[in-house]
Amino acid sequence: MRTTVGWRADGPATTLRRMSLERRDLRPDDIAVRVDYCGVCHTDLHAVHAHTGESNAALVPGHEFTGVVTEVGSEVTRFTAGDPVAVGNIVDSCGVCAMCRVGQENFCHEFPTLTYGGTDRHDGSTTLGGYSREYVVRDQFAYLLPAGLDPAAAAPLLCAGITVWEPLRALGVGPGTRVAVAGLGGLGHLAVKLAVALGAGTTAISRSADKADDARRLGAHDLIVSTDPAQLADARERFDVVIDTISAPHDLGPYLRLVAMDGTLSHVGHLGPVTVQITELLVGRKKLSSAGSGGRPATAAMLDFCAEHGITADIELLPSARVNEALDRLQRNDVRYRFVLDLSDLS
Amino acid sequence: MRTTVGWRADGPATTLRRMSLERRDLRPDDIAVRVDYCGVCHTDLHAVHAHTGESNAALVPGHEFTGVVTEVGSEVTRFTAGDPVAVGNIVDSCGVCAMCRVGQENFCHEFPTLTYGGTDRHDGSTTLGGYSREYVVRDQFAYLLPAGLDPAAAAPLLCAGITVWEPLRALGVGPGTRVAVAGLGGLGHLAVKLAVALGAGTTAISRSADKADDARRLGAHDLIVSTDPAQLADARERFDVVIDTISAPHDLGPYLRLVAMDGTLSHVGHLGPVTVQITELLVGRKKLSSAGSGGRPATAAMLDFCAEHGITADIELLPSARVNEALDRLQRNDVRYRFVLDLSDLS
Repeated sequence: MRTTVGWRADGPATTLRRMSLERRDLRPDDIAVRVDYCGVCHTDLHAVHAHTGESNAALVPGHEFTGVVTEVGSEVTRFTAGDPVAVGNIVDSCGVCAMCRVGQENFCHEFPTLTYGGTDRHDGSTTLGGYSREYVVRDQFAYLLPAGLDPAAAAPLLCAGITVWEPLRALGVGPGTRVAVAGLGGLGHLAVKLAVALGAGTTAISRSADKADDARRLGAHDLIVSTDPAQLADARERFDVVIDTISAPHDLGPYLRLVAMDGTLSHVGHLGPVTVQITELLVGRKKLSSAGSGGRPATAAMLDFCAEHGITADIELLPSARVNEALDRLQRNDVRYRFVLDLSDLS
Repeated sequence: MRTTVGWRADGPATTLRRMSLERRDLRPDDIAVRVDYCGVCHTDLHAVHAHTGESNAALVPGHEFTGVVTEVGSEVTRFTAGDPVAVGNIVDSCGVCAMCRVGQENFCHEFPTLTYGGTDRHDGSTTLGGYSREYVVRDQFAYLLPAGLDPAAAAPLLCAGITVWEPLRALGVGPGTRVAVAGLGGLGHLAVKLAVALGAGTTAISRSADKADDARRLGAHDLIVSTDPAQLADARERFDVVIDTISAPHDLGPYLRLVAMDGTLSHVGHLGPVTVQITELLVGRKKLSSAGSGGRPATAAMLDFCAEHGITADIELLPSARVNEALDRLQRNDVRYRFVLDLSDLS
């Protein structure tokens, strides 16, 4: 086994502590990555809060990171040591089901192996995430980081970015499409940037008028303040696609009412159960959908698109030793727009 | 005022009684229709059960009927006395909103006037439905019944038919589409016939294997018995479109799991709130939609399509005096597949 250092939740505490960790020795199709930057996702927060330690499984969060290849397995041809790479929230899948065969490993019928909290398909161990200085990953699930993308600001593309890229592409967003993005957080601010770069008329929806300037700086053509009933009423049925990135449970009604006839509300920010008034879908033949993560071809395409259009996340970069502060502030939505941990302090 | 006879709910009783009713004198754009046949819809059952009489409003159900024009208003040019006509569940709309302008009067921003239990836009009276011998309706909301369609069996097309026609068309069902229809009732059996006529590979989903013969007779290419977990598992992600016509509240999960990637579950049978596990939509980027009724152009197109393909409902025709028996049996789902009342016993 290899030894590295990471930030780990232990027992019922909701703070992470610096601890040494083991990584597997490289299999023939593995690469070892020196993790330089890892984004802090809402999922990490949920995982830390849900972790009681009773399962005796270690929890090391982190599933959107960038770094540099340090070593490659005997059969690896895609990478060599020194390559800049990125890893997202999936590190393996069955490879043979209908979903894997069409490159949607995120929907693998046997469930993909998650970057942390997953179960390794070979040795049955629990995967430990990117809040650590080294990660060992199957080469197929690492992506060459395109030149020109800042590796710190690119890290959030691997989860937040692909999660909003997928519905934008699946729903055919492009020139002429009217898109609204609800919630200007980690996912939302990237959804605005991507929708604008895809050529769509793009409106940000936020609870606060204070974000108007930010929204325009991100490229949004308009802002709707969701706490102003007049603005919501005025925007009735205005959008072909509404990407709802709000991370807390909330009523979908006000957002469905913004969707134009035959349009879609894509609900990506909160993955619990939701209750929908069917009449809200019926009137205007609207659709409710969701998305999360992406397959390997879409992830690679998203990274290329971002490089071409100069898109990365707006981040607050913190030394990884401040990880608990980042999680606290994320809990209060006090971040513009994504925390990224600099793991170099673990060396 | 004009006087006719109909079946009316009074007070908290859930039985209908034969009573005389008033109809308005014809406005310039009205026609008077002798109602010959009126379908019995689940909505009628709900309305009768919900009617307490406390509102003092009379309830005469019935919103899918056929008959013959007996008189036309001074400005009516589309019809003359003797024309066979059909009327559905909408009898007026604002005519000027964005939805009305595109011929989706069913989604009128000011809410369309319903055939019964609605409020007339001119005199404020409560509309009384088609369980009666005469109906007076704005000519724009009556449809010439195409030649060749049996007027009794065509009556259910005006609600059950258009309600399933809308999602089939909106979702682009045609040759090559894989469609499943859940629930073989009034809506479901027409959805099977329409999907087959549109050229789609069509599977019926029923709780009972007993319906296999019926399903094939309706044209279905296959039957899935929903109480057999193996059959459901085998059909995982098999369908581009699943039309869910089940009229009782139920878990959408088993039906969402039948939807192929980027496919749609159209939930048209039950209009209450539904709770969806967002992960059921996320995995496979599936969509949930609904539909109900249709606008004037779609209703006319549906009738033409049915005439061209010889499609009508499979009905049990009863004298209208047996209306309470029909409602009782509908409550128990004891109907293949739609009751139609013959109103000639009211003359």
